[in-house]
Amino acid sequence: MSAIKDSRNINFNIKHLRKGDPLPPFNGKLRVYNMRYCPYAQRTILALNAKQIDYEVVNIDLIDKPEWLTTKSAFAKVPAIEIAEDVTIYESLVTVEYLDEVYPKRPLLPQDPLKKALDKIIVEASAPIQSLFIKILKFSDTVNEEHVAAYHKALDFIQEQLKNRGTVFLDGSEPGYADYMIWPWFERLRAFAHDERVRLEPSKYSLLLEYIDNMLKDSAVSQYLIPLEILAKFHEAYTKKERPNYELLNECLKSF
Amino acid sequence: MSAIKDSRNINFNIKHLRKGDPLPPFNGKLRVYNMRYCPYAQRTILALNAKQIDYEVVNIDLIDKPEWLTTKSAFAKVPAIEIAEDVTIYESLVTVEYLDEVYPKRPLLPQDPLKKALDKIIVEASAPIQSLFIKILKFSDTVNEEHVAAYHKALDFIQEQLKNRGTVFLDGSEPGYADYMIWPWFERLRAFAHDERVRLEPSKYSLLLEYIDNMLKDSAVSQYLIPLEILAKFHEAYTKKERPNYELLNECLKSF
Repeated sequence: MSAIKDSRNINFNIKHLRKGDPLPPFNGKLRVYNMRYCPYAQRTILALNAKQIDYEVVNIDLIDKPEWLTTKSAFAKVPAIEIAEDVTIYESLVTVEYLDEVYPKRPLLPQDPLKKALDKIIVEASAPIQSLFIKILKFSDTVNEEHVAAYHKALDFIQEQLKNRGTVFLDGSEPGYADYMIWPWFERLRAFAHDERVRLEPSKYSLLLEYIDNMLKDSAVSQYLIPLEILAKFHEAYTKKERPNYELLNECLKSF
Repeated sequence: MSAIKDSRNINFNIKHLRKGDPLPPFNGKLRVYNMRYCPYAQRTILALNAKQIDYEVVNIDLIDKPEWLTTKSAFAKVPAIEIAEDVTIYESLVTVEYLDEVYPKRPLLPQDPLKKALDKIIVEASAPIQSLFIKILKFSDTVNEEHVAAYHKALDFIQEQLKNRGTVFLDGSEPGYADYMIWPWFERLRAFAHDERVRLEPSKYSLLLEYIDNMLKDSAVSQYLIPLEILAKFHEAYTKKERPNYELLNECLKSF
């Protein structure tokens, strides 16, 4: 089996545990309850990767959740991080801020309170991007001009921030909090590029497209990147009202 | 005119500015762009009140927004705080975290990273409370059992936290970040209490009801409290699909 492993030998692509599967015993290593395609859980993974924190992954089948999940994450959502046995933190941004405080190496949030606030504003402002994807996938009939306008307004805002800051990444010469927290939307945007409503017009979004290219080269991003075809195929299930196949990447990798 | 003023002579109930109204000149004092009935803007006001920061209020008519609002808050939302001329911060939780960092007196967030994370989890977990209110007000036909169950799950979670912590407030012997950030939902809950779906059963929620009573006595809360009848009347407009009357409180106060 040729599962992707990162430099610290983390296997991201292990099987997603479901109802009936036992809870793997906690061995003291920081653990992430994850779903391989979840953009929110990806934020936590990106922060861990960027900061080179040692961790292990427990993937969760979100359709058929293991019974013990609510003992780790009260609302049975991912991501959750387990920092000591049965001491867990959840909500993606909360996990990342915690990690950034406790592991000071490679700080992600700016130290200056105003710059920190502006980074968080960018993250909040990016919400309509992900909202549009969710609507297209799950409630396609309800997508209206207002949703698409909000999507473009969010993109315009981010591009404007990039332009004003004049740096390769929002957070400077290497990605930081704002970059990693909004990256999952941009990774998915590539899988929706066939959709006229989502597509980034090169004439209008040249700076943003260049930014996406730069982000793709970052090692925290690239080591967790899902091949575009797999990402598209995974999301197809939603539009077809089928059960998403969490093991798609594993099956693909095994076939080699 | 007997407008309510707090001890530092802040008038919360000034007229809501609308299209055509000029931008009041910035005089160097920290300013809040606010809407008197907005639960998100209330978070910022509560933090300012609790920390006894000197500030002024500019109320905004959110139906007929002043042209200059987007120069202060890119997405034309409240709250926004102006910390120096044309330097603004928006998104309620972002403003509060900024204020808590820059004004260290009476810290609202716990200093310990894990406790801080748990406070933020409570705030995130409270979201279904406000969501249910919004749905009841604006999309009453769409309210289903799932929404009501999520509402009760959020309440249960908060009550459980209170019980486990064993303190008068979530943050100890006086309210802190978690308490103030979720308070706007509890203030509104009182105005929806006639609705079976919202009402807190005393046998099930005695601890939470006691907590609400204690919060009502806090001075940061009480100085900004809207009389229950006014709050109910303001919200009636939504269910009747009428324009909400932002000056309701002023009109009421003037009639005395």
